[in-house]
Amino acid sequence: MKLPKGFLASGVRAGIRKKRPDLGVIVAPDGANAAAVFTKNRFQAAPVVLSRAALKASGGRVTGVVVNAGCANAVTGREGLEAAKRVRTKAAQLLACSENEIFLASTGVIGVVLPDRKVTVTLPDAITRLSSGGIDALSHAILTTDVGPKIAQASFALGGKRGRILGVAKGAGMIHPNMATMLSFVMTDAALDAATLQRCLKLAVDRSFNAISVDGDTSTNDTVLLLASGKLGNARGDLADFQRALDTVCRDLAWLIVRDGEGATRVMELEVSGARSERDAKLAAHAVATSPLVKTALHGGDPNWGRILAAVGRSGARFSIKRVSLTAGNVHLVINGEPAPYREKDAAKVFAKERVPIKLDLGGGSASAVVLSSDLGHDYVSLNADYRS
Amino acid sequence: MKLPKGFLASGVRAGIRKKRPDLGVIVAPDGANAAAVFTKNRFQAAPVVLSRAALKASGGRVTGVVVNAGCANAVTGREGLEAAKRVRTKAAQLLACSENEIFLASTGVIGVVLPDRKVTVTLPDAITRLSSGGIDALSHAILTTDVGPKIAQASFALGGKRGRILGVAKGAGMIHPNMATMLSFVMTDAALDAATLQRCLKLAVDRSFNAISVDGDTSTNDTVLLLASGKLGNARGDLADFQRALDTVCRDLAWLIVRDGEGATRVMELEVSGARSERDAKLAAHAVATSPLVKTALHGGDPNWGRILAAVGRSGARFSIKRVSLTAGNVHLVINGEPAPYREKDAAKVFAKERVPIKLDLGGGSASAVVLSSDLGHDYVSLNADYRS
Repeated sequence: MKLPKGFLASGVRAGIRKKRPDLGVIVAPDGANAAAVFTKNRFQAAPVVLSRAALKASGGRVTGVVVNAGCANAVTGREGLEAAKRVRTKAAQLLACSENEIFLASTGVIGVVLPDRKVTVTLPDAITRLSSGGIDALSHAILTTDVGPKIAQASFALGGKRGRILGVAKGAGMIHPNMATMLSFVMTDAALDAATLQRCLKLAVDRSFNAISVDGDTSTNDTVLLLASGKLGNARGDLADFQRALDTVCRDLAWLIVRDGEGATRVMELEVSGARSERDAKLAAHAVATSPLVKTALHGGDPNWGRILAAVGRSGARFSIKRVSLTAGNVHLVINGEPAPYREKDAAKVFAKERVPIKLDLGGGSASAVVLSSDLGHDYVSLNADYRS
Repeated sequence: MKLPKGFLASGVRAGIRKKRPDLGVIVAPDGANAAAVFTKNRFQAAPVVLSRAALKASGGRVTGVVVNAGCANAVTGREGLEAAKRVRTKAAQLLACSENEIFLASTGVIGVVLPDRKVTVTLPDAITRLSSGGIDALSHAILTTDVGPKIAQASFALGGKRGRILGVAKGAGMIHPNMATMLSFVMTDAALDAATLQRCLKLAVDRSFNAISVDGDTSTNDTVLLLASGKLGNARGDLADFQRALDTVCRDLAWLIVRDGEGATRVMELEVSGARSERDAKLAAHAVATSPLVKTALHGGDPNWGRILAAVGRSGARFSIKRVSLTAGNVHLVINGEPAPYREKDAAKVFAKERVPIKLDLGGGSASAVVLSSDLGHDYVSLNADYRS
């Protein structure tokens, strides 16, 4: 797979993780305009703090991205910040650019300072290996408990040219928003300024990553970076098709993240409608999507809708219980607050599939929300009960 | 074990559950003054709706309590309400009391109408078996996925007499507040009016069951009922010792519920202090107590404190990250936002025990909150992925 024009990437082993590639580099040799969205967690990881400030200082320009897995470098105080700065200084030297054009991202265990020496001694090798086909190596180097790499792409028409967008992501369980660090890097050859990119990215993220992370309730390191090399040489033009392509890439990556949730075997696609406000819709969706009872029932393929409504009932969302209806696939489970006459085996059939579409109508307004939720199974417990061992 | 004077109980099989006792009856032959607190879930089960209204109509008098396991009779609409009413009518006939002096409670699967015939045909047998030693049978008949029965008792001095309080509870995992139905029935021989009982119960519940259920964020059927037979014949007097005894019984039951959390092997006792407001303290405590990442680390005995702070960081609680400190047992993990120099094996020792005491100081005020949280293990997944099968 080739990167959009103007980008090179590589992935190597720095020895932060045992026996797995753990250092990725993306370079735009001629620089790229950039936009990013970050976690809203109060404990922002050192790379998040630095990258946010750098992006502001550079006016939205990025030359190099350095990503490591195995250590989140979060809640690491001054020491963590110093370690990240040393990586940035080294990268800027090697790429002959300003330190503010280096973008850092980390994922892994919280509370451990980044072993920056391992990164800085490996960076020259990573840079030597840069290539336009290096996205595969990079997609592996940023993983932690992910089952596999996540890449999505799309093309678009803009200002008389046909351009490309390619995105890569990691994150093994964003649906419990506190579960993992989600990183995503999206690259395009489009010629667009940083402010335009930021607007487009915000829209795309709201429709994709935020529909799985729910309410910005995210980890210490979450980062989505959008880079535009400008190599397409397009004129200014209608952004609609670019936005559609960006939405597609972000949604595909978001789906891959949920589907690859830690131990996940099934994904619930929950649509809440009829809410009095967007806040009510999100409260209801979030309560259902994060309920361990709902997620274990989903794991068991059990159409135990009582758990869904119990979660809605405690969510804080405003609604009248006599107007609530619930549907799984084409099976009506609850109509206006009363159990509907359905056949158990029809409901079970819906819950046996990989995608379980659930529609909840609160019957009280026109606001809505969509959320993707993975199931909660034994593998999740196994992965997280001994994550550090 | 004997009930306080003025109470009889029994537990029998009505056939709602397979092969297990599932119907309990408590009777105060001469009536009892009563106080109760109920779930705040919008979907209130039929027995909750009826019992709340009955208690109001009777002015806080209860003669009989009918509890069933195996069916929550929640989100069952008009049909569920009618089924519960038929049980109430039958119980009032058999006990020759007003329908408003019958208190109903149900626990089990949501969305299934109570098979009331099974209850009404079994009630005469349950009433025949009533005895002052029947609390053991009752304590078994109200269980669902609980590992075992939960009984606590204490004595107190009041108005020149020495009285008793005995409580029984069920609930296999209140710490995820949406996880289970929690029922508790507390009986005392004290002579106290309904209004006094309500005040005492409110205080006791805030210090016990609400420290595990967190913010009233409870299931469709949660009920705590306090009954006072008055058989102690005490004069009016200082309530302090009665309150202490009631607190003790409620706290002991709350601990038993968490310790017996579905699949639980370990309990985290989390104390949040230094918060700017009680709301901030509760937000932080709730986020940590319900985090699947924290709960799986607890299961693995892994002192992965980064997950605790990540949960605090996304909780919405206001604080300065530079003033946050975290302690496990006597081991300082984080001091003023920086990792403390501690030995991993010392921290691991704290997390290896059955009770894991964690102190989080937000360093910004004087408000505090305490919460008990069970771990999240494989048995939880097993129990809930095939709960209904």
